[in-house]
Amino acid sequence: MLSLFSTDRLSALTEKVRQFLEEEIYPIEKKLLQLPGKEAEILLNEKRKTAKKTGAWNLYLRPEQGGPGLSLPEIAQLGELLGTTPYGHYLFNCQAPDAGNIELLQEYTSGSLRAQFLQPLIEGNIRSCFAMTEPEYAGSNPILMATTAIRDGEDYLINGHKWFTTGADGAAFAIVMCLTDPEHPNPYERASMILVPTNTPGFRIIRNIPVMGHAGEGWASHSEIKLEQVRVPATNILGQPGQGFRLAQERLGPGRIHHCMRWIGIAERCFDMMCRRAVSREIASGQVLGHKQMVQQWIAESRAEIDSARYMVLHTAHEMETHGQKQAREAISAIKFLASGMLQRVVDRSLQTHGALGMTDDCLVSFYYREERAARIYDGSDETHKAALAKRILRQYGLK
Amino acid sequence: MLSLFSTDRLSALTEKVRQFLEEEIYPIEKKLLQLPGKEAEILLNEKRKTAKKTGAWNLYLRPEQGGPGLSLPEIAQLGELLGTTPYGHYLFNCQAPDAGNIELLQEYTSGSLRAQFLQPLIEGNIRSCFAMTEPEYAGSNPILMATTAIRDGEDYLINGHKWFTTGADGAAFAIVMCLTDPEHPNPYERASMILVPTNTPGFRIIRNIPVMGHAGEGWASHSEIKLEQVRVPATNILGQPGQGFRLAQERLGPGRIHHCMRWIGIAERCFDMMCRRAVSREIASGQVLGHKQMVQQWIAESRAEIDSARYMVLHTAHEMETHGQKQAREAISAIKFLASGMLQRVVDRSLQTHGALGMTDDCLVSFYYREERAARIYDGSDETHKAALAKRILRQYGLK
Amino acid sequence: MLSLFSTDRLSALTEKVRQFLEEEIYPIEKKLLQLPGKEAEILLNEKRKTAKKTGAWNLYLRPEQGGPGLSLPEIAQLGELLGTTPYGHYLFNCQAPDAGNIELLQEYTSGSLRAQFLQPLIEGNIRSCFAMTEPEYAGSNPILMATTAIRDGEDYLINGHKWFTTGADGAAFAIVMCLTDPEHPNPYERASMILVPTNTPGFRIIRNIPVMGHAGEGWASHSEIKLEQVRVPATNILGQPGQGFRLAQERLGPGRIHHCMRWIGIAERCFDMMCRRAVSREIASGQVLGHKQMVQQWIAESRAEIDSARYMVLHTAHEMETHGQKQAREAISAIKFLASGMLQRVVDRSLQTHGALGMTDDCLVSFYYREERAARIYDGSDETHKAALAKRILRQYGLK
Amino acid sequence: MLSLFSTDRLSALTEKVRQFLEEEIYPIEKKLLQLPGKEAEILLNEKRKTAKKTGAWNLYLRPEQGGPGLSLPEIAQLGELLGTTPYGHYLFNCQAPDAGNIELLQEYTSGSLRAQFLQPLIEGNIRSCFAMTEPEYAGSNPILMATTAIRDGEDYLINGHKWFTTGADGAAFAIVMCLTDPEHPNPYERASMILVPTNTPGFRIIRNIPVMGHAGEGWASHSEIKLEQVRVPATNILGQPGQGFRLAQERLGPGRIHHCMRWIGIAERCFDMMCRRAVSREIASGQVLGHKQMVQQWIAESRAEIDSARYMVLHTAHEMETHGQKQAREAISAIKFLASGMLQRVVDRSLQTHGALGMTDDCLVSFYYREERAARIYDGSDETHKAALAKRILRQYGLK
Repeated sequence: MLSLFSTDRLSALTEKVRQFLEEEIYPIEKKLLQLPGKEAEILLNEKRKTAKKTGAWNLYLRPEQGGPGLSLPEIAQLGELLGTTPYGHYLFNCQAPDAGNIELLQEYTSGSLRAQFLQPLIEGNIRSCFAMTEPEYAGSNPILMATTAIRDGEDYLINGHKWFTTGADGAAFAIVMCLTDPEHPNPYERASMILVPTNTPGFRIIRNIPVMGHAGEGWASHSEIKLEQVRVPATNILGQPGQGFRLAQERLGPGRIHHCMRWIGIAERCFDMMCRRAVSREIASGQVLGHKQMVQQWIAESRAEIDSARYMVLHTAHEMETHGQKQAREAISAIKFLASGMLQRVVDRSLQTHGALGMTDDCLVSFYYREERAARIYDGSDETHKAALAKRILRQYGLK
Repeated sequence: MLSLFSTDRLSALTEKVRQFLEEEIYPIEKKLLQLPGKEAEILLNEKRKTAKKTGAWNLYLRPEQGGPGLSLPEIAQLGELLGTTPYGHYLFNCQAPDAGNIELLQEYTSGSLRAQFLQPLIEGNIRSCFAMTEPEYAGSNPILMATTAIRDGEDYLINGHKWFTTGADGAAFAIVMCLTDPEHPNPYERASMILVPTNTPGFRIIRNIPVMGHAGEGWASHSEIKLEQVRVPATNILGQPGQGFRLAQERLGPGRIHHCMRWIGIAERCFDMMCRRAVSREIASGQVLGHKQMVQQWIAESRAEIDSARYMVLHTAHEMETHGQKQAREAISAIKFLASGMLQRVVDRSLQTHGALGMTDDCLVSFYYREERAARIYDGSDETHKAALAKRILRQYGLK
Repeated sequence: MLSLFSTDRLSALTEKVRQFLEEEIYPIEKKLLQLPGKEAEILLNEKRKTAKKTGAWNLYLRPEQGGPGLSLPEIAQLGELLGTTPYGHYLFNCQAPDAGNIELLQEYTSGSLRAQFLQPLIEGNIRSCFAMTEPEYAGSNPILMATTAIRDGEDYLINGHKWFTTGADGAAFAIVMCLTDPEHPNPYERASMILVPTNTPGFRIIRNIPVMGHAGEGWASHSEIKLEQVRVPATNILGQPGQGFRLAQERLGPGRIHHCMRWIGIAERCFDMMCRRAVSREIASGQVLGHKQMVQQWIAESRAEIDSARYMVLHTAHEMETHGQKQAREAISAIKFLASGMLQRVVDRSLQTHGALGMTDDCLVSFYYREERAARIYDGSDETHKAALAKRILRQYGLK
Repeated sequence: MLSLFSTDRLSALTEKVRQFLEEEIYPIEKKLLQLPGKEAEILLNEKRKTAKKTGAWNLYLRPEQGGPGLSLPEIAQLGELLGTTPYGHYLFNCQAPDAGNIELLQEYTSGSLRAQFLQPLIEGNIRSCFAMTEPEYAGSNPILMATTAIRDGEDYLINGHKWFTTGADGAAFAIVMCLTDPEHPNPYERASMILVPTNTPGFRIIRNIPVMGHAGEGWASHSEIKLEQVRVPATNILGQPGQGFRLAQERLGPGRIHHCMRWIGIAERCFDMMCRRAVSREIASGQVLGHKQMVQQWIAESRAEIDSARYMVLHTAHEMETHGQKQAREAISAIKFLASGMLQRVVDRSLQTHGALGMTDDCLVSFYYREERAARIYDGSDETHKAALAKRILRQYGLK
């Protein structure tokens, strides 16, 4: 029913990607989930070769950057499809945070950094990470931090403590948010982003944080990091000193669309599994779960919630594409908690429909139940977005 | 943010209608609510003269029928605007059930009935009603009924008992659903729609049913009706004998869009009132309700829920317009309970934000709280739609 | 299953009251609801004669005050039973605000006021009202008000504007909360309660506020009141000047129990109606609503929610009875929103189960749906209580 | 506020157990969670020696069985306390399924089985398991199964396939539910419980099922089991042939109380953690999470929901103790889904309050989020109980 956002280019790509996922990825998901992280990464890297041939590699990038040059609504719809498997985004080199890092480097670096880091990142030969959150500060506030970068001649000397740095384990470099001008009167101009190769002395991964029972490895890890007297050339800064917050904001809008569409993809996958279970699980002679109204209710409500969330996200993408991010600010806040709340409800209903099986690793839903609980927390907690959206609305009514 | 569904024609009409509502209707709403029903109708009929001049009169009709000839998504968006006041649809002659009755008469009558009933209905000079539900049968099933029409020479003789016949009080005619072939092997071909002038002997309004504390009058009433040996010419049948159910189905799709968009209009009105209240109600020195996170949460969630419902309904309208009603069947079920549930939550939050004032007739929200509770019941209960949607989905997965 | 709170005395009284309600009141409820308020009051006053004979008259009072001398948990359980009909509390002279006013007068008046007002109130020969809320201030804060009482010789001169004064229409006197010392450094010692006979010059009912479509009359009204240069003897003050807030607090605890148990009674009534409907409404051959899981779900959840709320309220009553109100402060906040939320859900489900009938005045549920929406607002809004409870808890964890 | 259910005996025991948990267990929880299952079991077995000295060892048993002889409400309240740590029940030898198995052996075995299995189980020297659910059948129906026990001379020959057999890994014996009379006209008399030593040839653990990312070991595992031509003496049957279902039912009532109270203990623990986090997590200068109304709302609602669930469960325990299980049947169904629903909401709110930390294994809440999702599934899914309760209620209204 998505004709309004359909394009021929998109249909063709979708068809190829879907075929690839159905033939090569869905069948090995269970194996991938059970492999140690680094072994899974090796197998996935093999599959990336096929992914590249679909034409959707580097989905988010313009042709001159090595991508297909799609519109944001087109990207969004492919992103949903990739979201139907835990490996979709990695396979097409558009996993977080690499996809966002590519965009940052495209815009805000020049010279040797491009050859050394940007190009191999685009080709999928290295990985990167993005170090912002600190354990001592609430994550929702990008100006509350203690990591500093002190100018020392031609270099910056960086000291700090970060955590939940996704994919740091095995990354070639980190983009580190740090205070370059901690006393600046405007708190939004205190921070900068600096590229730090992970092999720089003083950069140390303390541990991969165990999340929901697993420490994770490689691409699928979240690390705690110490930076002690880390010295990098001053030219490793992205953009101008003090622009860290602004750059983070720019990344935000499209990133939000990507997150939400990935969640919608997950929800569709769990919905599909719920329906398959409903028609196959016998509960009495001639009767399956799907004959029960309590299950029907979950299916109907999930269908309506997934679809309405998708329309809202795609419209927001369309609005950003045609009128710019600023115009769509309220919607960008709204889709975060709309989609994350929908996701949690759909995953929960699907798990419940699977009964005891839904608790086990034999069932992909249990993986999503654990991993995607984070959707209501990262990228700004749902509560933060609700408060921000309401205040923005009420200011139009005169709230001081 | 609705650019995707915007058209120049729509923008121009919207502007005129909005101005009319703001200047002439919103200011007299409270007065209208307190007037006895028939007095309110007189005042409204006066205002209809201005409404006619906006070009949105008979919103749903094609130019040759006396309407502006809008597309379904355009109609839907104007319908939302009309929904922002309890009087919007009546003012533009597209209140239920007259709008639907006009469409039925357009398609399925000929000859003198057109001059006698259709033309004055289009001009807004008479009103009509639609008698389907019976007190003894569950309303959600249009084939479960006891009213019969027995062929007697050139006439039908009708006997039956109907209720919740909206607008019967003062109507010139009723379209009555009755069994013309009660033994037909296909239960969906047993009923027909027959036009019955209300002054036909044997047609009797027993009472206007008191709903939520008010009996209602005229346009805004719901009557209980007895039909005893009511004799009408056999030519008063709409379409062919046995087509009653099919005609009802045809009416359903666009009617669903109209209902949902009216609800969205109501939700927007209550949302606006909630925001005004939030910024104006002091609760402590320098602090208003809108500074409180519990209120902010209601505002943010309402914004997201209203917008996502609207996008889904407009897409469904778009789909119906471009691919036909059949293609959109699942969405037509889904929007019913999605929109009615959203409406109830938004109205409830707005009422709560108004505190004790929200309970009083000084506050329009209390009117909607009472009247629109019915949204989850009429046009098929939410539960009926959920079960139907789920079964349709599960059948695609092989459910028997 | 309430054996833990059962007593022989209670069982005997319960039996008598239940019989009275079943034989004389439930059968005339519909008639009472349709009668004009003052006519209904005449009929109810007739029925009070029988009510007096049950021994439950003045339920809340000690024997020396003319009541049966029950414990708070016993009162609570009888209060639930009275709550099963809109007329229960009035029939036994324990309707708000008279019951609370009796307690205030018992404790804080002497001399001629007792003979003139207390005694006839106990006997049910006059009614009274309690004027606290003001239209200009948020109702949840008993120290935010503008009504003043200025000492003038042996009198007070009162000026102010009150609304939502329940039962003012026809009352013999009002207890008016007013500022007697508006500049007192402790804001909680600025107000006093003063008894004002309603026939005092300057005391004027502006209107009975139309609530949910009805202005109400007599006992069942909520009035807007102006007090202009109202002169009463200084001895009409209850307790000491400045004690108004403290007296209001004292009233609070038992009053909360009474409210909550009345709501539980209403919920039980609506639950009973829902079950009756579920087993009698045919939806297909041989199938009734109660065979549908969506309805079963409502019934099961309602049963669990009603019962758990009741146990919590009765325990709170027990705690207050044995250890005093202070000990139970947190529970007293918690039961407010626990019970009001439960009430709204149960009423809503019962209405939905009744379908279109549930919208009509033929069905008692629609009356409760309208009237009892206020439960989440009065006696402190649910939001106020949630915030207060949480802050109290968090202060024990060190919150400043 | 639990005075109504308090006893001196209980207070004394509670004090000792609380002290033991606070001094010896809470401080090592994190270590225990990270240890491999069998190593954790060794450490816990060490701690059991101290637990024995508190007098609460074998909490559920009568003195002559080696327990303290508490009433069901007393047991329930201690059970809540044990629930505040994942290790509580194991430490006191009342973990599932051993506690239930002890009761079964007490009642339904004699002779050498008592010395060989019951006595060491009571002393905590061996563990046991209970094999009922089969992968091919919906778990909620104890009569739907394929495992058979065929009488062969003095023995039974058992064949079947079980899963989710908690604690099978390392258990000395299993109680296996199997069909001994598969053709019995009364389906509830087809099954029996048979004691099978796990070292019997043909009894084979296929795997410990990975649940929520972990396979588990020992006490904290759930195994898949094959029984192939397993031969045990016919005297290993518990009770009479065909009594399997009845024995399962008997176990049910007290077992439900134990589950629910353990969940309440978990909820209290997560509530405590939520409050600690709320007062300690700074979000802006001078402001902590607990100052935010969205967090306050979670705290207040959790408080009310936990307390009301506890009162309902304790009353049900009291009712079972004084009037027998049959009398309390409806309540026994209701508390299942009331408590499991409450648990899920409280855990979810606590996790959200912890933000990113809540996703990590540094935070006990994430463990409960994963493990206790099962509460809505095992012991009969919530949906099964809702339907059963509603049907029981509606039959009293005449539902057929």
